[in-house]
Amino acid sequence: MCVLGLGLIGGSLLRDLTAAGTPAFGWNRSTATVEAASSDGFDVSGDLVATLSRAEREDALIVLGVPVPALPAMLEAVATHAPSCGLTDVTSVKGEVLQLVEAHGLSGRFVGGHPMAGTADSGWDATLEDLFQGAVWVVTTDGAPEDGAPEDADWLQIWCRVVDMAVQVGAVVVPARARKHDGAVARISHLTHVLAEALAVTADQGGALALSLAASSFRDATRVAGTEPGLVRAMCENNREALVTALDETMDLLAEARENLADPHRDISGLVDAGHGARLRYEARAGRVKGGPTNRPYIQLRPGTTGWLDQLHYAESIGAQIGLLEV
Amino acid sequence: MCVLGLGLIGGSLLRDLTAAGTPAFGWNRSTATVEAASSDGFDVSGDLVATLSRAEREDALIVLGVPVPALPAMLEAVATHAPSCGLTDVTSVKGEVLQLVEAHGLSGRFVGGHPMAGTADSGWDATLEDLFQGAVWVVTTDGAPEDGAPEDADWLQIWCRVVDMAVQVGAVVVPARARKHDGAVARISHLTHVLAEALAVTADQGGALALSLAASSFRDATRVAGTEPGLVRAMCENNREALVTALDETMDLLAEARENLADPHRDISGLVDAGHGARLRYEARAGRVKGGPTNRPYIQLRPGTTGWLDQLHYAESIGAQIGLLEV
Repeated sequence: MCVLGLGLIGGSLLRDLTAAGTPAFGWNRSTATVEAASSDGFDVSGDLVATLSRAEREDALIVLGVPVPALPAMLEAVATHAPSCGLTDVTSVKGEVLQLVEAHGLSGRFVGGHPMAGTADSGWDATLEDLFQGAVWVVTTDGAPEDGAPEDADWLQIWCRVVDMAVQVGAVVVPARARKHDGAVARISHLTHVLAEALAVTADQGGALALSLAASSFRDATRVAGTEPGLVRAMCENNREALVTALDETMDLLAEARENLADPHRDISGLVDAGHGARLRYEARAGRVKGGPTNRPYIQLRPGTTGWLDQLHYAESIGAQIGLLEV
Repeated sequence: MCVLGLGLIGGSLLRDLTAAGTPAFGWNRSTATVEAASSDGFDVSGDLVATLSRAEREDALIVLGVPVPALPAMLEAVATHAPSCGLTDVTSVKGEVLQLVEAHGLSGRFVGGHPMAGTADSGWDATLEDLFQGAVWVVTTDGAPEDGAPEDADWLQIWCRVVDMAVQVGAVVVPARARKHDGAVARISHLTHVLAEALAVTADQGGALALSLAASSFRDATRVAGTEPGLVRAMCENNREALVTALDETMDLLAEARENLADPHRDISGLVDAGHGARLRYEARAGRVKGGPTNRPYIQLRPGTTGWLDQLHYAESIGAQIGLLEV
């Protein structure tokens, strides 16, 4: 494995792969990071061309761990220096990355990834072992070949390698097409950020008394407003269409609740009952306790064999995690 | 102390007062609760008239621990059977309670209270020792006498008893007028609930894939959507005016963000930077770590002495916690 970009996600991935005994090496632009990772005992370099040439030589799977703005230059370099390597990424919006990959003529070798893990910190110093343990790792299925289409054997092999890598670091793989993924994360991640920012501002506008009275419900609900603004903008502004759709639904719900509150003869049971039901459904799936057992459905499939594409789409539609059987 | 209603708040208060060695007894309507609390060793009864007569005899401070809908009947009984006792409450909206108290001619003996503590559970079985440790306990100041006004000595004494009780169970007292309190909790508590419900519903509308991908940011942001719907409605629907004001501000922020997202030439730095700044201000006051040290300002005052009313209003305006000095 070859990890380009050794921030929180890329760096933690290099740690876990190395710990698992998988041959893995990395590259980072910053000399300080290269020195820190080297002195921690990892096989890293600051020379991109050398790193990519080595990846090509060793048939490594390349993991793009750089932020979205750095992707075009990175794809350019991959196309030039590692033209036959498989390729994946770890960014939080998949549609835009897919477009970039297509623009560089690399889609036949690209499988998108998105580990749903992280902390509020960033950079090599923030990297952790076991960051992905139990987390969902979305692996995209755009470009998946029809059952047994031989010309796509390369893509299929890369797809299996990406799934295996996620499993190796303890993650749970959920397959999804880029567009479906982006619609889902708009609702459960990007919208969460936008609402947290708005809640924090509204409380702040209430002055010191409001901030003094805030208890753990407010603390938890605004936690992600503490995230570096640049990261929040990168997620939200790269997923505009899906986020606007989600935001419109939320604003409709709030507008209705607002009208019901403004009229003393009406009540907000509609929103409150629906929200309570939705939270219970979430808990039924994700588990009631943070880090506890989940009830996500599980599907086993044999990549490329008859019916596997139907299985993939079915898994996506029910949010199932998958396991691969030997072909 | 006499605690009427032994649910999560009233029951936990009875536990802590008893543990602190303060003579305290309680009443609850349900026989099952009376039996459970008795067998846990507490001095409780299911006879309201007898309990109130005893409070009157022993000059106990009466704590109304019942839900808002039960307050009118309780105030009626207090006016009849414990006409000279001091009175406080623990409900989350203060303006409405104050009106009820006035309607029963009890405002000269009433000081409102609101401990900012709780769990998602309710009833005697949910009661905990040390529930209030480190929590803010708002004590209302409506009706506070001008400096040294002798006719209000009774009110002043009751006010001090309420403050002392909160301190005794480990809470931190922040003074506020009912209207200011209600405006503040609309922003940091009731709005938090409404947004959590709307977020949970919007995610749920994204189907199974969205729920499967939800990670800890979504879990934390929707935690309070798991609260019993009746409790959420009781809070929000009893604080309509202040909540509508807060909700309007939030909806304006969201509408602006939505327009900026819909236009690829614009960005959401306005909201994101403001939200991040607001969260940092909150952390600077409440402490970065849950349960860790806080930086709330602290003011010491001598109740009833010259300048104390100015001190109270100043404390309210900066959200300060207070300590009482001997008069």
